[in-house]
Amino acid sequence: MKPIRLGMVGGGSGAFIGAIHRIAARMDGHYQIVAGALSSDPERAAASAAELGLDRSYADFNEMARAEAAREDGIEAVSIVTPNHLHAAPAIAFLNAGIHVICDKPLTATPEQAQALAEAVRASRARFFLTHNYCALPMVREARALVAEGALGQIRLVQAEYLQGWLADEVDNKQAAWRTDPAQAGAGALGDIGTHAWQLAQFVTGHTPSHVSAEVSSIVPGRPIDDDARVSLRYASGAKGGLWASQVAVGQENGLSLRLFGTEAALEWRLEESERLILTPKNGPAQILTRAQDRSTSYRTPPGHPEGYLEGFANLYSDIAAIIRGDTTDLERVPGLIAGLSGMSFIAAAKASSAQGGAWIEIGE
Amino acid sequence: MKPIRLGMVGGGSGAFIGAIHRIAARMDGHYQIVAGALSSDPERAAASAAELGLDRSYADFNEMARAEAAREDGIEAVSIVTPNHLHAAPAIAFLNAGIHVICDKPLTATPEQAQALAEAVRASRARFFLTHNYCALPMVREARALVAEGALGQIRLVQAEYLQGWLADEVDNKQAAWRTDPAQAGAGALGDIGTHAWQLAQFVTGHTPSHVSAEVSSIVPGRPIDDDARVSLRYASGAKGGLWASQVAVGQENGLSLRLFGTEAALEWRLEESERLILTPKNGPAQILTRAQDRSTSYRTPPGHPEGYLEGFANLYSDIAAIIRGDTTDLERVPGLIAGLSGMSFIAAAKASSAQGGAWIEIGE
Amino acid sequence: MKPIRLGMVGGGSGAFIGAIHRIAARMDGHYQIVAGALSSDPERAAASAAELGLDRSYADFNEMARAEAAREDGIEAVSIVTPNHLHAAPAIAFLNAGIHVICDKPLTATPEQAQALAEAVRASRARFFLTHNYCALPMVREARALVAEGALGQIRLVQAEYLQGWLADEVDNKQAAWRTDPAQAGAGALGDIGTHAWQLAQFVTGHTPSHVSAEVSSIVPGRPIDDDARVSLRYASGAKGGLWASQVAVGQENGLSLRLFGTEAALEWRLEESERLILTPKNGPAQILTRAQDRSTSYRTPPGHPEGYLEGFANLYSDIAAIIRGDTTDLERVPGLIAGLSGMSFIAAAKASSAQGGAWIEIGE
Amino acid sequence: MKPIRLGMVGGGSGAFIGAIHRIAARMDGHYQIVAGALSSDPERAAASAAELGLDRSYADFNEMARAEAAREDGIEAVSIVTPNHLHAAPAIAFLNAGIHVICDKPLTATPEQAQALAEAVRASRARFFLTHNYCALPMVREARALVAEGALGQIRLVQAEYLQGWLADEVDNKQAAWRTDPAQAGAGALGDIGTHAWQLAQFVTGHTPSHVSAEVSSIVPGRPIDDDARVSLRYASGAKGGLWASQVAVGQENGLSLRLFGTEAALEWRLEESERLILTPKNGPAQILTRAQDRSTSYRTPPGHPEGYLEGFANLYSDIAAIIRGDTTDLERVPGLIAGLSGMSFIAAAKASSAQGGAWIEIGE
Repeated sequence: MKPIRLGMVGGGSGAFIGAIHRIAARMDGHYQIVAGALSSDPERAAASAAELGLDRSYADFNEMARAEAAREDGIEAVSIVTPNHLHAAPAIAFLNAGIHVICDKPLTATPEQAQALAEAVRASRARFFLTHNYCALPMVREARALVAEGALGQIRLVQAEYLQGWLADEVDNKQAAWRTDPAQAGAGALGDIGTHAWQLAQFVTGHTPSHVSAEVSSIVPGRPIDDDARVSLRYASGAKGGLWASQVAVGQENGLSLRLFGTEAALEWRLEESERLILTPKNGPAQILTRAQDRSTSYRTPPGHPEGYLEGFANLYSDIAAIIRGDTTDLERVPGLIAGLSGMSFIAAAKASSAQGGAWIEIGE
Repeated sequence: MKPIRLGMVGGGSGAFIGAIHRIAARMDGHYQIVAGALSSDPERAAASAAELGLDRSYADFNEMARAEAAREDGIEAVSIVTPNHLHAAPAIAFLNAGIHVICDKPLTATPEQAQALAEAVRASRARFFLTHNYCALPMVREARALVAEGALGQIRLVQAEYLQGWLADEVDNKQAAWRTDPAQAGAGALGDIGTHAWQLAQFVTGHTPSHVSAEVSSIVPGRPIDDDARVSLRYASGAKGGLWASQVAVGQENGLSLRLFGTEAALEWRLEESERLILTPKNGPAQILTRAQDRSTSYRTPPGHPEGYLEGFANLYSDIAAIIRGDTTDLERVPGLIAGLSGMSFIAAAKASSAQGGAWIEIGE
Repeated sequence: MKPIRLGMVGGGSGAFIGAIHRIAARMDGHYQIVAGALSSDPERAAASAAELGLDRSYADFNEMARAEAAREDGIEAVSIVTPNHLHAAPAIAFLNAGIHVICDKPLTATPEQAQALAEAVRASRARFFLTHNYCALPMVREARALVAEGALGQIRLVQAEYLQGWLADEVDNKQAAWRTDPAQAGAGALGDIGTHAWQLAQFVTGHTPSHVSAEVSSIVPGRPIDDDARVSLRYASGAKGGLWASQVAVGQENGLSLRLFGTEAALEWRLEESERLILTPKNGPAQILTRAQDRSTSYRTPPGHPEGYLEGFANLYSDIAAIIRGDTTDLERVPGLIAGLSGMSFIAAAKASSAQGGAWIEIGE
Repeated sequence: MKPIRLGMVGGGSGAFIGAIHRIAARMDGHYQIVAGALSSDPERAAASAAELGLDRSYADFNEMARAEAAREDGIEAVSIVTPNHLHAAPAIAFLNAGIHVICDKPLTATPEQAQALAEAVRASRARFFLTHNYCALPMVREARALVAEGALGQIRLVQAEYLQGWLADEVDNKQAAWRTDPAQAGAGALGDIGTHAWQLAQFVTGHTPSHVSAEVSSIVPGRPIDDDARVSLRYASGAKGGLWASQVAVGQENGLSLRLFGTEAALEWRLEESERLILTPKNGPAQILTRAQDRSTSYRTPPGHPEGYLEGFANLYSDIAAIIRGDTTDLERVPGLIAGLSGMSFIAAAKASSAQGGAWIEIGE
C-alpha cells in the first residue's frame, strides 16, 4: 500500500512533540513525510528539513498550504505540532486547502481561536484529528469497551489525575517557556495535561460532566499561569467525580490515572503500568487484565512484551546503523558472534549437566 | 541522512518476529527495506513482498545474496528472522557476499551450525549482529553502567529468570510448531528464552559463569524438547547464581527478570516494569531508578512516558491513515473537533468556577 | 509492672471495634480488663462479660462510673466503643468520676455533644484519648518526623483519601445500621472515615486547613446520610489540598492514603502497603523507606516482618490452645514433629548433595 | 474461658523470638505465662521473670519440668525459644513430665538430637508443636485450601525463596552469634530460613520432594556455616522445583515467597504483601485474592485492615498506658480532645460548603 504523503508544521530541531509525531507516523509504514514548515525562522526550517530529508521546506505555513494543494504530488495530510496559540491559523489554512489536519492538543490557546477553527472544520471537506494519544493505548480502549458493555453497571464515581513535577520550580527551557506563557499556551496545567485527563475520562466513560467546581492555582510564586487545578465534577446521571491536574507535584514524572466506580464493579488504569487494567467486581476478587484479555487488537506485540519492547529493538537497529555507517566504534552495545557462541555453550553445558544428574559442567569457550 | 538499504530473510505474512524487526528498522528512519526472501515458498514470498511494498523479492536466499551483492543499489545489510535451523546458512551466504547480517537469536540450532557461522563471520569483512533485544532497553543499559562503576561492590549472587506459560499445553500453531521441534529449534526453553536470560545476566554483570549444574525437563508429556530448565551457576569470582527458564509457567506472559546481590548493594530489574530499576544499598533505603536517573540516552521520550507511549501515538496515526484512505468508517477511536471543543469548554468552566470561589459552573457545548 | 485496670463501655458479643480494642489492650500486657457495661441490654451485657471473664458487669455506664470510682480496686481507665451518639454521655460520666477515657472516633455525633464533652474534659483531672489508630503506625510516625525535620521543604499539595466499598448497596447488618442512621452516626462517610483522613493529614503535616469547599453526596438512592465526600482544602500557608472519603467505592477494602508534595520532595503512604513510605526528592530517585529507616521505635518485630506476622504467630498459639483444650481434632494446621523431622531431612540432604557436587540425593524419612 | 498456664524456656531480656511468642500468646487471651527458665544465667533469669511479672522463675529447665509437673497449678504447656542446640533437651524434659511443648524451629541442631526428641514425642502423652509461623497466615492457609481443592490442577513447578540480607557481612550481635555458630545452630541459612521455605512449600502443596540437588555455600569469607543455599527439587509426581535461601542477599529484609504453577493455574504469595494471593488461571486474568475471598476464618480484622492494624491500635494503648502511669510527658503521639474537635469542625464545614454549592467555608476552632 502506498504511504500517505504527510507534511509537518513545527517540529524543528530540538522539538519534543514533533519528533514523537514523526516516529508515530513512521512506525507502521503508513506515511511518508515529504514537506514541512518546521520553524517560523526560515533558516532553521530549512536546516531541520534537510536533516530530516524532506523533499520540500517552506518558510510559512500559508505558502505551504497553497503550494502543496496545487501540486499533483502534494501532501494529503499535515501534522501541526506548534505551541497552542499556533494551532488554529495553520489548521485553518490547510483545512481551507482541502488537506487533512492532525493537530496536537489542546485545540487552541483561546476560545476565539477554537471558534474560528471549528468553523473551518465544518466548512472543509478535509478531516480534523486531535492527538489525545492516551486514548489509543490498548488497555484504555479495553477500558472503554468494558464500560460500554456494562461491566461496571452504572458509573457513580470518576477520578482522573494527571500529575507532573517538572514545573515545580521556574524552569528555563523551550518546553517550559511557551507552556507558562499565557499568550502562547492559553492555559497552564489545565490545558497541557488537564485536557488529557478530561478527554481520557470522557473517552472511557462515554459521558461528559455537566458542571464543574474548581480551584485553579498558581503555586510557584510569580508564575503567570495555572500550575495546579482541582476540579469537582457533576454528571447529569448523578455521578460525581474529580479531576486533579498538577505540574508542581514534585517527583511525579507523568502520573496519569483514571479510577471508575460503578454499581457493579470498579476499574483502574495508570499510565505507569499502562498495560494493566484492574477490574474489581463488587463481590469478587480484583482481576488484572492485560492485552491477553483485550479485544481491541490495537497492538503490535504479544501480551507481556510491554514498555518499550519495540523501542528496545529499534535501539539495536539504530545502533547497528551507526556501526554500519562508521559513526561509532562502540561495538559493545550490540550483541554479535561472541554473545551467540556463549549462548550455544550455555545450551550445551546445561543439557550435559542435566544428563549427568546435575554434575557441574565447565562452560566451553 | 540516507537510509541504509536493508533486506530480510523470513518474516512473511503471519510471522511474529519479522514484523517486529520491520517496525524497529522503521522507527528512527535509519533503514529502507528494499528486498526480501520472505518465505521458502516462492509464491508466499512474492505476495508478502508485494504487501510490504518491497522493490525486489527472491525465492531463495542464496540467489538473493548473489544478486544483491552484484547491484550498485543492492542491500547493505540483511535481517534474518527465520527459525533457528535456518540462521546459519543464509547468514553465511550474506557474510560471504560482504553484506552485514542482523540475525535473530539464538545463534543457531546446533553447535555445528554455530561453528560454521563463526568461521564465516571471522572470514568476512561484513559485520554480524545478534538481536538480544532486552540488552538495549534503557534501564538494562543503566544497570550495566551501575555494575561497571562499582555501585554493587563485588557481585555475589546472580538470579535470572525467564518464565512464560504459553507452552503449558501442546500448542498447535506456527510459532509453537518450530519451537518445539528439535530439528528446527535445537533447544526449547533453553534456546528460545534461556539464552536471553543468559545474555542479560552476562551483559549486565560483565561476567560469564564458569560452570553450570542443570536440571532440564520436558514437563508436558510427550514433548520432544525441553520446556523447563533450572540451572545453578558458579562464577570464577566465587559468586553463585541461578537461571530458570520455563515455557510451562502458566499465567506468566513474558516474565524476564534479573536480580543481583553484591557486597555493597542489590539491583533488580523486571521486564514487566521495564522502566524501573530497584537499587538497594546495603544500609540505605531502596531506590527506584527511572530514565530520569539514566545516563544511557537510549530513549525517545521523557521519563514517565512509558509502555507504549509511542505505540499509542502510532495507533492514532495508523487509525487516521485508515480513515483518510476510506478503509474504515469508525471515527470514534480518533479524537477530533468535538473532543477539542470539549477540552476548551473544560478549561473555560474550570477557570470561571475558580474565579467565583468554587461555584458550580455548567459545561458549555 | 502491674497492668492498668481497664473497663469497657460497648463492645459486647459481635461488636467489631470492641474486640479490636481488647486485642490492642492485651498485646503488650499493659492492661487488665476487669469491668464493663458491654451492652445497653443488661442480659447481653452480663453474658458478654462472662464470656470475656470480666470481674464486674454493669447494666448502665453511669452506675459503672460511680461504682468503679468508689472501689479501691476500681478501673483506672475506660474504653468507650459504642456508636457515635453514645460517646459523649459515658465519656462525661467517667471523666467526672476521675477515670481516664479512651474513646473511639469520631468524637461525637453532634457538635452539641462535642461541646459538652469538651467542657467535661477541661473540668476533669482525668485524661481523654481518641483512637485515631492510623497515626500510631510506624511509617506514619516516620512520615510526621520527616515532615517536621523539613525533608519535604514547604508543603504545597496535600491529598488524603479514604475509600471503602462496603456501603455501595444498602447493607443490612449491625455495623451498617448505625453508621447510616443520622441520629446514631451524625455523619456518614465524613464522620466514619473522613475524620480519619483529616486527622492523618493533620498529624503528618502538622497543619490544619483554614478553609474547605465541599461536595457531600448520598450516592445510594434513599440513603439518609452522606456516603461520598470530596473536599478541597486551603491552608493558611497557601498550600492546596484535597480529601476524598467514600464508602461506595466498589471493590475498595480500606483504601486510606496520603500524598504530600513540597518544595523539595514528595511523600506517599498507603495503608495497603503500610510498612512502606515513598520519599521522592525533587531531583533524585524515589526511595522506599521501611522500618529499617524508621526512628520511631514503635514496633515489635524487625523490618520485613510485616502484615500480620504477629497475628500469624498468634493464630498458632490459639490453635494450639484449642488442641490442648480438646476443642478441635484438626491437628493439621499446626506443624509438629513430622514437620520438624522433614526440615531436618531437608538440611541433611541439601548438605550431602552440595558436598557431592550437586548429585541428586533422596529425601530420607 | 480460663487461660492455659504457660511456661517459657529462653526468651530473657533482649531476646527476639521469645518476645514474639509472648505477644502471640497474649493476643487472644488464651494463655497466662506463669513460669519460666528464661536464661541459663540464674540471675538474668530471675530479673527477666520479675520484669515480666511471672509467678515462678527457675534457673534450670529440668528443675522447672519436675517442679511444675508436681504442682496442682503447674504449667500445662511450655514455649521453648532457645537457640537450636537447646531445643531437644528441654523439650524432652517437659514431654517426659507430661507437659505440652511449643518449640521454635528448626527442630534441633543435629540429626541425633532430632532422633532423641522424636522418641520422646512418641513416648509422651503430651503434644509437640513447632512454630513454623508462616503457615498460619490467612492467605497461606487459603493457598493450601485452593491447592487441595484442585484450583491449580496438577502442580508442575514449585519455587520457594527466603532471602535476607542481614548476614551479608560479619555481624557482631547476639542474634547473629549463635546463628553462625555450627555448634549452636547446626545449619545456617538452611536451618534458620530454609526450613521455613521447605515447610511452606510442603504445607501449601501437600507434597514433599523426593530428591534434592544442592549448592550450599558460605559466601562471607571465613564464615563457618552456610549462608546461601540453592536447591533443585524433584517430586515423585514428576513436578520440578527450586528452593533458594540466602542470608547474604543485601537489601532483602525478609523475602519469603512461594510460586506454584499447575496444569490449570498459577498461585503466588509473597510475605511482603502477605494479605494478597495472586491466582492466575491458565486462560483468564490474574486475580488478586484477599481475606475477602478467604474461607479460613483465621483473622481478627476485616479485609483491608492489614499490616499492623492491630499493632497500630496496640501502640496507642501502650502509649496511653505510659501517659497514665506518668512514664512520659509526650502527649503528642496520642490524639485527644483537640483532634476530636478538629474532626467535628471538619464535618460541619464540609456539610456547610456542600449545602452552599461548594462555597469556601472557614474552619472553626
